[in-house]
Amino acid sequence: MAHTSFEYVRKFEDVGDVCLPSTYIVVRLDGRGFTKFTKAHDLVKPNDKRALDLMNRCGVAVMEEFGEIALGYGQSDEFSFVFRRDAVVFKRRKAKILSLLVSLFSSAYVFHWATFFPQTLLQGPPQFDARIVLYPTDKSMRDYFRWRQADCHINNLFNTAFWALVHQGARTPAEAEAELSGTLSQDKHEIMFSSFGINYNNEPAQFRKGSVLRRVMHPVPIPSAVRAEEEAVAKVSATSDASEKHASASDLGRSPPAKKTRLKRVIRVFHEDIIQDTFWEEVLGKDA
Amino acid sequence: MAHTSFEYVRKFEDVGDVCLPSTYIVVRLDGRGFTKFTKAHDLVKPNDKRALDLMNRCGVAVMEEFGEIALGYGQSDEFSFVFRRDAVVFKRRKAKILSLLVSLFSSAYVFHWATFFPQTLLQGPPQFDARIVLYPTDKSMRDYFRWRQADCHINNLFNTAFWALVHQGARTPAEAEAELSGTLSQDKHEIMFSSFGINYNNEPAQFRKGSVLRRVMHPVPIPSAVRAEEEAVAKVSATSDASEKHASASDLGRSPPAKKTRLKRVIRVFHEDIIQDTFWEEVLGKDA
Amino acid sequence: MAHTSFEYVRKFEDVGDVCLPSTYIVVRLDGRGFTKFTKAHDLVKPNDKRALDLMNRCGVAVMEEFGEIALGYGQSDEFSFVFRRDAVVFKRRKAKILSLLVSLFSSAYVFHWATFFPQTLLQGPPQFDARIVLYPTDKSMRDYFRWRQADCHINNLFNTAFWALVHQGARTPAEAEAELSGTLSQDKHEIMFSSFGINYNNEPAQFRKGSVLRRVMHPVPIPSAVRAEEEAVAKVSATSDASEKHASASDLGRSPPAKKTRLKRVIRVFHEDIIQDTFWEEVLGKDA
Amino acid sequence: MAHTSFEYVRKFEDVGDVCLPSTYIVVRLDGRGFTKFTKAHDLVKPNDKRALDLMNRCGVAVMEEFGEIALGYGQSDEFSFVFRRDAVVFKRRKAKILSLLVSLFSSAYVFHWATFFPQTLLQGPPQFDARIVLYPTDKSMRDYFRWRQADCHINNLFNTAFWALVHQGARTPAEAEAELSGTLSQDKHEIMFSSFGINYNNEPAQFRKGSVLRRVMHPVPIPSAVRAEEEAVAKVSATSDASEKHASASDLGRSPPAKKTRLKRVIRVFHEDIIQDTFWEEVLGKDA
Repeated sequence: MAHTSFEYVRKFEDVGDVCLPSTYIVVRLDGRGFTKFTKAHDLVKPNDKRALDLMNRCGVAVMEEFGEIALGYGQSDEFSFVFRRDAVVFKRRKAKILSLLVSLFSSAYVFHWATFFPQTLLQGPPQFDARIVLYPTDKSMRDYFRWRQADCHINNLFNTAFWALVHQGARTPAEAEAELSGTLSQDKHEIMFSSFGINYNNEPAQFRKGSVLRRVMHPVPIPSAVRAEEEAVAKVSATSDASEKHASASDLGRSPPAKKTRLKRVIRVFHEDIIQDTFWEEVLGKDA
Repeated sequence: MAHTSFEYVRKFEDVGDVCLPSTYIVVRLDGRGFTKFTKAHDLVKPNDKRALDLMNRCGVAVMEEFGEIALGYGQSDEFSFVFRRDAVVFKRRKAKILSLLVSLFSSAYVFHWATFFPQTLLQGPPQFDARIVLYPTDKSMRDYFRWRQADCHINNLFNTAFWALVHQGARTPAEAEAELSGTLSQDKHEIMFSSFGINYNNEPAQFRKGSVLRRVMHPVPIPSAVRAEEEAVAKVSATSDASEKHASASDLGRSPPAKKTRLKRVIRVFHEDIIQDTFWEEVLGKDA
Repeated sequence: MAHTSFEYVRKFEDVGDVCLPSTYIVVRLDGRGFTKFTKAHDLVKPNDKRALDLMNRCGVAVMEEFGEIALGYGQSDEFSFVFRRDAVVFKRRKAKILSLLVSLFSSAYVFHWATFFPQTLLQGPPQFDARIVLYPTDKSMRDYFRWRQADCHINNLFNTAFWALVHQGARTPAEAEAELSGTLSQDKHEIMFSSFGINYNNEPAQFRKGSVLRRVMHPVPIPSAVRAEEEAVAKVSATSDASEKHASASDLGRSPPAKKTRLKRVIRVFHEDIIQDTFWEEVLGKDA
Repeated sequence: MAHTSFEYVRKFEDVGDVCLPSTYIVVRLDGRGFTKFTKAHDLVKPNDKRALDLMNRCGVAVMEEFGEIALGYGQSDEFSFVFRRDAVVFKRRKAKILSLLVSLFSSAYVFHWATFFPQTLLQGPPQFDARIVLYPTDKSMRDYFRWRQADCHINNLFNTAFWALVHQGARTPAEAEAELSGTLSQDKHEIMFSSFGINYNNEPAQFRKGSVLRRVMHPVPIPSAVRAEEEAVAKVSATSDASEKHASASDLGRSPPAKKTRLKRVIRVFHEDIIQDTFWEEVLGKDA
């Protein structure tokens, strides 16, 4: 076959364990047996901020390691990551990506446990299962994350009402389950507000929307040592500039003061709506 | 998972990843970047028993969790597990088996670190990659493990000679590498013995052969409370037997003393030769 | 299939082979051993229009059978088909699509042979291999077809020059090969024009560009019987309309004459450039 | 990794589109829409020997082309082939094996049609779908073929009774269906024998058991020209032997007469029971 610029398409032909080129690689992790794990470690119901923050810390660890991940999204004991369409991580080999990602998340979970649970001894090594799913179009990839956030919202609305009935309404779990069974979203809002004064919309956004991990440009302070060095360098070049332009004596050696911060790509956690198009235009525009 | 209009994306998840039935499922884990990890934690060269024992501890954790694993084999920063041919673990779905196994191994590694390295602070979460390979015949499965033990032997022979030259022979790593380059196995034996009095065959079997994890029947003590209860039960049934057979008074109430130990299937670590057929006849005969 | 104790073997069949949803499914067929086949049937070199037309006839048969194929492209003994992104043919199962498509193409080749080679007895059943390749983006799918047309152009330019040297320039194949080796495209044009008066651009477009099979709307005559019936129906409805609008007597019973042709989607063969964007905007806009 | 004789196992690791090494590759073809095809060509019900023999002819064509096929089995419009465990056909690539095999079977079906249906014009190109299934053990592979022969037996018993009721018992298809619904095997035997004098066991074995295609050693006549040449050669060598052993004059030039037949591996069609172990010991012993 002749060599033409179109021949790159051949790489689509041999995709054994390789993720089809030009598709979004999404990896979703899911805690195994976390209902038991949550009880064993006496985590706060329905949401334990320490546990959610620990999950986010592990998400950040993964995104620091895998530079081609454009976005992470976590809710409950679940975390999803999407690689850029053109990612070449480990030559897109599924087993390699899947295993290293879930391995890092799991070991980070234990490694950072004490930071978030200083008073609670971890009773045993947790387990996360993981799967890789390929999305060939922008729409299907976006709808995947919308699906997960919609899932977070619906489950959290139920859980918040459920535990309000149990904790404040002295119902047994079975009674609370029966009472909520068949109710619509607004019914649950009404139960929480009229019975317990809970305005669901005032609940922490982290619980209602989950956590979005994104790479953003952020001003970070330049260490003084580095600043001093930069100032020295700036002075030297200012002097040579000045002599070229016969600047006045007073200009000699005077250079603009070195900047105190520099923009750096960092991973930040947001609790924002990822169902609207606006989010994706902004993300795919800048960060992805 | 809640029902929303985005849920159509689920169909991207079921594009098939079941392991062919009646094949041996082998999973091999491999530490990522462990040369750097070894240096950062100042591990003993060429073998750090604490690190090997920690790897074995994680292997035991995996075999405790996955009951259908017939055998585990670890060497250096690598561990292999083989499931029974008829294993139905997670309906033989690759991603599920791969991710949960490597996740447990990784989190166990961090969880048990302090037990084996009480004086050494873990500097960061380790990563293991993992792959699944299917072996359809007894011969190919056995040869896989033979390949790994042969690899352990050859690498360990080289490493032992290399570090003897560096530690005791004051060579630089480059010099040691050059000196060993092109030598045969017996040459290495000769260098170690004549220059440093090392009889390689006396090196710990764990270093030379790696570690084999097997389920064996092992006598374990029966807790006294359980024994007491068993004795009571035995007495009652002895009395009713005796009256049926008009036994003499002295036999009444006399029952054989309850056993002090019971055979239980436990996971034990061996450092044995798995290249000879004898090993496999014994393992596949009893335990697999 | 009946139920017997052996039926457990069916579980070996479902180890997954679905094409990722929302991707373009491309199937490429390739004649096996057609150099020998061509010689055995004494086909015209470098291009035998009868053979190319037979390949196109088989392409039409395939597109008639598989309604979700948007486009076919044939050159030499090769044919490519692309299904619409949203195709649900055989639930997108690879083996089903691949086998039925290549089976129909192969049996059609023999079935229609005599139409194109009335004087040439087919000496044996031909064979075509086939592969499925998935393209997730419009660009990669288009570039696949561009790659195939560029391949057709480059090979045909070489073959036309080669056979001109052999047929008209009395070179041996080895001499012709040597003479063309390392020449650029324009050199080949020059050789053909200066030595044999062949203006390559005047060669049949079918040979230079290959054949593009597309579904287009085409006026087809309405059978007179159907027309008569339609006229009768039109007359009846015209009479009832007229009486409602108190039309003059003369309008009664007068209806517009039934149309003689109707637009129908038919498959047509084109020999056109599919490298320019214009082609794709037109195809994806209307027909795909 | 060091090089040892066990390293061949690595080939199990990269099995994209490749059939797992050391497994039996089974390909099953199935006519598409053959109920309609059978009606359109007015084939004899329940079995048309011409059609079954044509299927067998295509099976032979495939086994002649694919030398590593150990066995073929056909029933109705279905054909199965099993490759030897150690087959390396097309580097065991699925799409290549599947497409070329179904392509040859399909084009052979049309190519040989007129031989078996000299009076019946083929109305259109037939289609066969095909699938590849891997069987890792002797038992599962044998049980696959047992499943297919059991299926053939059960379907043919029903069909023979059904068409007897329709053809000789003047039932409508619906009546025949209702009458047979829920009957056991022996009931069907009884209906056929008592109502129509049909002893099912005397029905042609081809219909009851299907067709088994095997490679067997078969004496084939040696062409006279070849025999003459062999005799000449034998004479020359006999003369030189005789002079060495001072044989009598009369022995000079006298050589044993050249054999008239030679054993050659040919493909033969059998209608035999492949459910019993005896068949497999014989087949796997000699031919597979």
